[in-house]
Amino acid sequence: MTDRLHAIIPAGGAGTRLWPLSRPECPKYLLPLDGTTLLADTLERLNPLSSSRTVVTSAVMEAKVASSVPEGVRVLGEPTARNSMPAIGLAAAIVEVRHGKDAIVGSFAADHVVTNQAVFADVVSRAIAQARAGDIVTIGITPTHPATGYGYIRAGRILGEGETRTGARRVEEFVEKPDRATAERYLADGGYLWNAGMFVASCSRLLDELACAHPQMARDLRHLAHVWGTPQAASAWSLLPSIAIDHAIAEPAAAAGRVAVVEAPDMGWSDVGDFDSLAEFLPVKEGAAITGPVEPGVIDSPDAVCVTTDEDTEEIYVLGIPGAVVVRDGRRTIVTTRQQAQRVTELSALANKQEGHQ
Amino acid sequence: MTDRLHAIIPAGGAGTRLWPLSRPECPKYLLPLDGTTLLADTLERLNPLSSSRTVVTSAVMEAKVASSVPEGVRVLGEPTARNSMPAIGLAAAIVEVRHGKDAIVGSFAADHVVTNQAVFADVVSRAIAQARAGDIVTIGITPTHPATGYGYIRAGRILGEGETRTGARRVEEFVEKPDRATAERYLADGGYLWNAGMFVASCSRLLDELACAHPQMARDLRHLAHVWGTPQAASAWSLLPSIAIDHAIAEPAAAAGRVAVVEAPDMGWSDVGDFDSLAEFLPVKEGAAITGPVEPGVIDSPDAVCVTTDEDTEEIYVLGIPGAVVVRDGRRTIVTTRQQAQRVTELSALANKQEGHQ
Repeated sequence: MTDRLHAIIPAGGAGTRLWPLSRPECPKYLLPLDGTTLLADTLERLNPLSSSRTVVTSAVMEAKVASSVPEGVRVLGEPTARNSMPAIGLAAAIVEVRHGKDAIVGSFAADHVVTNQAVFADVVSRAIAQARAGDIVTIGITPTHPATGYGYIRAGRILGEGETRTGARRVEEFVEKPDRATAERYLADGGYLWNAGMFVASCSRLLDELACAHPQMARDLRHLAHVWGTPQAASAWSLLPSIAIDHAIAEPAAAAGRVAVVEAPDMGWSDVGDFDSLAEFLPVKEGAAITGPVEPGVIDSPDAVCVTTDEDTEEIYVLGIPGAVVVRDGRRTIVTTRQQAQRVTELSALANKQEGHQ
Repeated sequence: MTDRLHAIIPAGGAGTRLWPLSRPECPKYLLPLDGTTLLADTLERLNPLSSSRTVVTSAVMEAKVASSVPEGVRVLGEPTARNSMPAIGLAAAIVEVRHGKDAIVGSFAADHVVTNQAVFADVVSRAIAQARAGDIVTIGITPTHPATGYGYIRAGRILGEGETRTGARRVEEFVEKPDRATAERYLADGGYLWNAGMFVASCSRLLDELACAHPQMARDLRHLAHVWGTPQAASAWSLLPSIAIDHAIAEPAAAAGRVAVVEAPDMGWSDVGDFDSLAEFLPVKEGAAITGPVEPGVIDSPDAVCVTTDEDTEEIYVLGIPGAVVVRDGRRTIVTTRQQAQRVTELSALANKQEGHQ
């Protein structure tokens, strides 16, 4: 039997670049896309590779998420948002209590797309093997263009020898989202991979690494794993600092030479970060990529995207705007282009301002 | 007292370049624009210059038009559409019956804008004087750019001497909508004016001119003027040919040297032919020209136009599309640019095709 992991799926964030399609009460991972959701796809993708699956979401979304996942999937609701480290750390600590310190956990975002399951399975199995060798392992995506929307992983020497060789490389450094020129340099260099936020490690390795820089948080999370579900858990949770796993573990561990990366080429990965990348996963009808049942009327607007929610009596017409993005959601209409799609978050901010929610 | 005319206001056509704002059941001349309509403005503009005002519309629109006009305005409903000659000719024939053959009629489109009333009044009064001298008189707009959307009038020598001089010139020729290069040549030439479809003449001059090329139609219209409102009128009407006044009268009369033109500079005229020109008459809120109560959210989209009907709870956001045109009307959303606005009629055709109304 293949070595399996305990999957942790942090499901937080509203995805404001997909506003108003994605919003706090209907986050990106629950969007209905062609009969499924990104969360359902993520759970499905992890099912053959996992011994258990745990979704960590906000308390507000807990019931909605719980009703959407298959039986056997554990759902944890954070009383308050504390960024990714407490979310993943709590789930890892609970796995440690139930399955022992050597159990392998893997964290995978709830709202990413992976189209090549075979590559994904291979990469995860190599990450598990490398984690068994004692590393914190990340999965790095082979860049296909000089993206400025992702952080990068600088990969070093190949690890292991003979049978223990997993193809993993030592992580030299995690680097922040680059500007265009830097991204082009990374692409030309060839030694940089996209950081897709996927981490694999044994429970103890992960929590002990956390304990190096944040001993109190590691203790608190291991304590919470025992008392989760009791009244005292909420107050203990509220004392945790808000910090991302990248800053709490990945960056300091990499600096200490304790992180490995398994490269994933041709995995068909996307973070579906905006309407431009969303469009790549949508069916094309009448010349436009669409969500929902509305088929638009499009003239001289190649690569248009029409996003509608549940209004199947809508009619949308687009004339003379290549790459037009038209979003219709209830009383809201958003119009932009795929080129500007990253900036939709500015419209979301403007809408909040106009509604006096500033 | 100033010499007055009997105003004829043909109100036909749906204005498909303003679709779906303008459509058969709500034509351009009845669009609510900033608390008024183009028809109401036209009637108001003609009121101080007219002894009577007659709107000629379709039988389908007759009741709606009648309920929208001030008391004393006559409304004629054509049983079937027969283009502009029968419409204007019938109204002129009725004026002839009631006010005599020397009564001056003037025809003015129901859905044009004139912002300078003083220039308009002066031009009309000179047109009336020139019509009294026996001409068919058209009002020509001084071109401000090489427009390809209008027909042109080639003006010749100045007419009259001394006190009878009205500033009118002989019309050499009416020419069709030109291509861009030709329009630029017309503009450079200086002898060409835009044909705004305004005609002034005595009843007898107009109908006798019609009788030259179309004697049967002239007879039929004069007969109809006597029987209008009786059952036999509808069947007599249905036998009339469908023809524009330009072809029936203006062009042959110009060829015979019997048409004069009064030039109207700086009259602030527009045919409000598409969303681009409509926008020039709309209030600007939040950086976009708007109709209706919805104030859009606009980022990096100078000169945007947002057209909404009566949905005051709508929210419209536009990002990164200069000159964007967004139209929301019930279940329909239209997205284009001001540059492409002339082509909205293509979307209207596409919509009809999709609905199987082809």
